[in-house]
Amino acid sequence: MANNQPLVGIQEGLEQFIQQYTFGKEPKELYEPIDYLMGLGGKRIRPLLTLLAYRLYKSDYQQIFSQASSVEVFHNFTLMHDDIMDEAPLRRGMPTVHEKWNANTAILSGDVMLVKAYEMLLDTPQELLRDALRIFSRTAAEVCEGQQLDMNFEQLGTVSEEAYLNMIRLKTAVLLGFALQLGGLLAEAPAEELEKLYAFGVNVGIGFQLKDDLLDVYADKAKFGKQVGGDIIANKKTYLLIKALELADGAVKDELAEWIRQETVDKEAKVKGVTRIYDLIGIRQLTENKIKACFDSGFEQLNGLRVADPTALSLLRQVVEDLINREK
Amino acid sequence: MANNQPLVGIQEGLEQFIQQYTFGKEPKELYEPIDYLMGLGGKRIRPLLTLLAYRLYKSDYQQIFSQASSVEVFHNFTLMHDDIMDEAPLRRGMPTVHEKWNANTAILSGDVMLVKAYEMLLDTPQELLRDALRIFSRTAAEVCEGQQLDMNFEQLGTVSEEAYLNMIRLKTAVLLGFALQLGGLLAEAPAEELEKLYAFGVNVGIGFQLKDDLLDVYADKAKFGKQVGGDIIANKKTYLLIKALELADGAVKDELAEWIRQETVDKEAKVKGVTRIYDLIGIRQLTENKIKACFDSGFEQLNGLRVADPTALSLLRQVVEDLINREK
Repeated sequence: MANNQPLVGIQEGLEQFIQQYTFGKEPKELYEPIDYLMGLGGKRIRPLLTLLAYRLYKSDYQQIFSQASSVEVFHNFTLMHDDIMDEAPLRRGMPTVHEKWNANTAILSGDVMLVKAYEMLLDTPQELLRDALRIFSRTAAEVCEGQQLDMNFEQLGTVSEEAYLNMIRLKTAVLLGFALQLGGLLAEAPAEELEKLYAFGVNVGIGFQLKDDLLDVYADKAKFGKQVGGDIIANKKTYLLIKALELADGAVKDELAEWIRQETVDKEAKVKGVTRIYDLIGIRQLTENKIKACFDSGFEQLNGLRVADPTALSLLRQVVEDLINREK
Repeated sequence: MANNQPLVGIQEGLEQFIQQYTFGKEPKELYEPIDYLMGLGGKRIRPLLTLLAYRLYKSDYQQIFSQASSVEVFHNFTLMHDDIMDEAPLRRGMPTVHEKWNANTAILSGDVMLVKAYEMLLDTPQELLRDALRIFSRTAAEVCEGQQLDMNFEQLGTVSEEAYLNMIRLKTAVLLGFALQLGGLLAEAPAEELEKLYAFGVNVGIGFQLKDDLLDVYADKAKFGKQVGGDIIANKKTYLLIKALELADGAVKDELAEWIRQETVDKEAKVKGVTRIYDLIGIRQLTENKIKACFDSGFEQLNGLRVADPTALSLLRQVVEDLINREK
């Protein structure tokens, strides 16, 4: 970016707001895990999207730090509870809350986080409050639905492409759509603009998840933060595996089924073997095409916005493009 | 009650609203546990208090079934999550959600219930919405704080009377206060009335919990729904045990400590032995006095209300008195 000063200023203001926010003090067993998880950092993408969407129509983004942070608190609430369900030991390279404390603490602290996410939205002006809470509640329920579908899929032999795309839409993409829509709503943008902001977020959100699936297999080992092929080893039903199961036939299909069946196999051989099958039937190209289609749909919505401030629009575009071009 | 027709009408309308309410459909793994728990019934005391408090000032209570039911949904959300934490096998005589399904399902379905409780409050008129959500959010956080304190107390050797009363205030009483305050708020009662309604609920709520503690030891076996002395066997830090530990001295204190220390003892003997100590130092009378003081403080608030409809006031009084006089 030629000049990222405005972005840095927004990010610093947001981070400062989050760091100084007091969720609660006593009992400390309840509130310390919230401070711990929120303090582990992360890119704060969702609240940043809220602030940048607001800034498309209004400049005084400092007015909505509380509501923007609400999206981040909600996101971290889902992480705290999902990590229990997924029995995840680490989050951002540090022990998860249920590991550092215990599952009961992670349940109860998570519950309070959800309450606090609502509370932080209550700074919204009266005439916008009901709408903000309606779309937040709908999104929050959808995120839970997505997590349940994800858990259901683990128990199934096959999952259709359509069902998978719907799951990742609910589990991860609608929250990006909400983050953007909320920013527009708080800036009192017209309803058509809010729809486009939402659709922009959902489409690029699906693209991000598919890119995650792709990077697991085709990331540059030197740049990638985790083990390449982790999803293959775990038989995770990613977009790549779902498409491969759909498209493979004959001996290739049998070989893929055999790799999936073998759980105690040589991990490196399994990653190599499954990747070879993906290469054979063109899964990489197919996934890249799908990702591009998602991003294109998203940016089409963005290009249709009638924003007051073109500099703000290019800032939002740049932030999302940087996310798209990440390699880890 | 001479004429309980109006009460039955309100209760039936409320029950019908709750039964026909659709929390969600898909995925069914997420929503079925909610229908199951809400369908187990219960006395629906909290939403009834909301409706009766509203009716003190306005007659069209049918307008606030959604908000009243929100309090019941929130209460059942806390039951679903508390039952996981307490590893409770049964709820209202039926398997708990985490037993019938699993802990992950109980976590995630509970999360959606909390979202739905907020959603059901959104039918509130715009000019009252922020206040309703503020007091709801504060109460919800306090209930979590109370549950955390309760779990903390299990790990402690002694708990002070003050700390115990604060815990039960947060864990159970503030929700009764909120239920009543919400009804008054929705009926646009003045701020002083709302404070009195809240204080009424909190005081009788503490009284109810102390009565629970008392009935565990001194209930009429024939009328009591569960095993008499269950809290004694489990060394539960009830008001009775806390006061006994505070007041006993000499040989009696040693004997009490010995009963607590012995975990594998003859249960019947332990209940008998501890009850004898309670009798010896007048714990029953002391607890009954405390309960009476709580109820008296509550009703003092109720008597200070300036309500439009005296029939509605006697209905509310009667419902709470019936709860007070229960023997199980």
